[in-house]
Amino acid sequence: MSDQPGGHMAAEIGQQPGIFTDLVARRGGFAPVAEVIRDRQPRFVLFAARGSSDHAALYAKYLTEVLLQVPAGLVSPSTTTLYGARPDLRDVLLVSVSQSGGSPDLLEVTQSARERGALTVAVTNTADSPLNAAAELSVDVGAGVERAVAATKTYSATLLALYLLVDAVRGGDGEAVASIGEQAAATLDLSAEAVAEAVRRYRFVDRVLTTGRGYSLPTALESALKLAETSYLAARAYSGADLLHGPVAAVDGETAVLAITSRGRGGDALHDVLDVVHGRGADVVAIGSGADRVPAALRVPVAETAEEVAPILEILPVQRIAHGLSLARGGDPDSPRGLNKVTRTR
Amino acid sequence: MSDQPGGHMAAEIGQQPGIFTDLVARRGGFAPVAEVIRDRQPRFVLFAARGSSDHAALYAKYLTEVLLQVPAGLVSPSTTTLYGARPDLRDVLLVSVSQSGGSPDLLEVTQSARERGALTVAVTNTADSPLNAAAELSVDVGAGVERAVAATKTYSATLLALYLLVDAVRGGDGEAVASIGEQAAATLDLSAEAVAEAVRRYRFVDRVLTTGRGYSLPTALESALKLAETSYLAARAYSGADLLHGPVAAVDGETAVLAITSRGRGGDALHDVLDVVHGRGADVVAIGSGADRVPAALRVPVAETAEEVAPILEILPVQRIAHGLSLARGGDPDSPRGLNKVTRTR
Repeated sequence: MSDQPGGHMAAEIGQQPGIFTDLVARRGGFAPVAEVIRDRQPRFVLFAARGSSDHAALYAKYLTEVLLQVPAGLVSPSTTTLYGARPDLRDVLLVSVSQSGGSPDLLEVTQSARERGALTVAVTNTADSPLNAAAELSVDVGAGVERAVAATKTYSATLLALYLLVDAVRGGDGEAVASIGEQAAATLDLSAEAVAEAVRRYRFVDRVLTTGRGYSLPTALESALKLAETSYLAARAYSGADLLHGPVAAVDGETAVLAITSRGRGGDALHDVLDVVHGRGADVVAIGSGADRVPAALRVPVAETAEEVAPILEILPVQRIAHGLSLARGGDPDSPRGLNKVTRTR
Repeated sequence: MSDQPGGHMAAEIGQQPGIFTDLVARRGGFAPVAEVIRDRQPRFVLFAARGSSDHAALYAKYLTEVLLQVPAGLVSPSTTTLYGARPDLRDVLLVSVSQSGGSPDLLEVTQSARERGALTVAVTNTADSPLNAAAELSVDVGAGVERAVAATKTYSATLLALYLLVDAVRGGDGEAVASIGEQAAATLDLSAEAVAEAVRRYRFVDRVLTTGRGYSLPTALESALKLAETSYLAARAYSGADLLHGPVAAVDGETAVLAITSRGRGGDALHDVLDVVHGRGADVVAIGSGADRVPAALRVPVAETAEEVAPILEILPVQRIAHGLSLARGGDPDSPRGLNKVTRTR
């Protein structure tokens, strides 16, 4: 596969159903970590991440607040790494999310948080990473080596690992993701035709905006990043709520709007936003199990699940759209110009 | 002024030095609120906001972590408004930031947080707003009525109000902003020529990316929003750290990069990022008191201040660039198509 442009990315997209099934099968391994978290009764949860992992962290922030009823926030690493903030973090759980486990800034944030009294958990796809060594506890995403520069399977598997962890903390039995592997395979099948149409339709697009609300906001953010890094599109992501505050002025008949609309409260709350966007003449492609409920020029179906696990599936057709657009526009999604797999920022 | 396109926005940009001076003069009014916050000793601070105010909230999150050494996070309103999360918020300070004080979702978040034990503070530009009534304590931004749809003076004055509040909580005397009014006037003067050049230079631009690190990240986010809502540009904002994780693939010779580079650790940390971006052929315009230190095609000077208050000034020339670009492209920055002043989302 590696000889073809995009061969790695295509293969890794296709591996996701199997990875999900395996991850759910070994969810018992999350129990000891969950038990320590439950015993410590954190009053607050912080997530530290960069890039795609930051979108996975936002998903976990929603899960934490809604399913665990504990307030949560995303870390701004620079307050630690640039400005030396050393707040009191007793009663705080810090979850560091990183595919490689090798980002120096996350390592510093994790070490510092542990010194300051936080319970630290590393969620990585590299079980022997420096981040795993720095954190008190670790969760292995187990998606296997990712060769394409654009994160696909590591992103979705990180979402699933974070869901399983939160579910274990609340004493759940993983019911909502019991069939997530089969649902992922079904999603790849049933979305294939619409994905091909989206690639034809947006081959020459310049302006892309992605939007979602609630649990689907992280998918909108990840979708914009995926399009920007593989197809060099000027894709911007907005919460449906923020979109109406200003950026909607930039939406017109030359704008493609990729709207993440799963069944549930987040998808329902996007209806009003899409009415406005549609009224401005934008070309809306609706992606998700609720895509049939909104005004759209193109609908990309996704298997229906509980709303809180829909992000694990919503991203799959978007990955394929990004892959297809990159090839159609003459690129190689496996090695976008100028990108390395591990970014070393401080 | 109101008869000319952009007359309100131009006038409101020009009012900022006087508003800053007045706000600093009445900083004693922040003391009672600060005293209550100090007495309650919050373990965690949450900020709730939308749109431009969300960027002001991010600035305040940095201030809170660095100057008060208390961990902080931004609220995702939908976990409350869509999913009914009701976490235990004792020992939490919730600061709701809103120009109008009229957003129903922030109102609900504030009411809910107060019921759950949080100390609630409203920071608004409308002293008799519903949000002020809902919160236990209030801070008045006092920027006067804003007629242009694009927030300018309410944004910068909100930054200053948040700084004064945090500074009062730590027992400071406002020294870093003692001359902020004069420094704002000086910034508007000394940046005028470069602003005019930026408007000429970017009149026909399609791809704009804004970036900053540390305290300047909120300025980068607000700059992208300002350009998107007044000039309909597909402007995207990235932390300098996140930029190298993927979006840099979309940077090329057709991209204008607006880099916020004030003197200090955030500006210094952007040097490596700008070396990469510059090497990819992007047209870099550096804005800030450290603009002379980075590779750039155009430098927009800003008066030098302590790094933690630089965001209050950095945004001024960007507002003028957005205003100028909007007019040059045939728009009216006072009333961008499709925008209302108060957005009612839930």
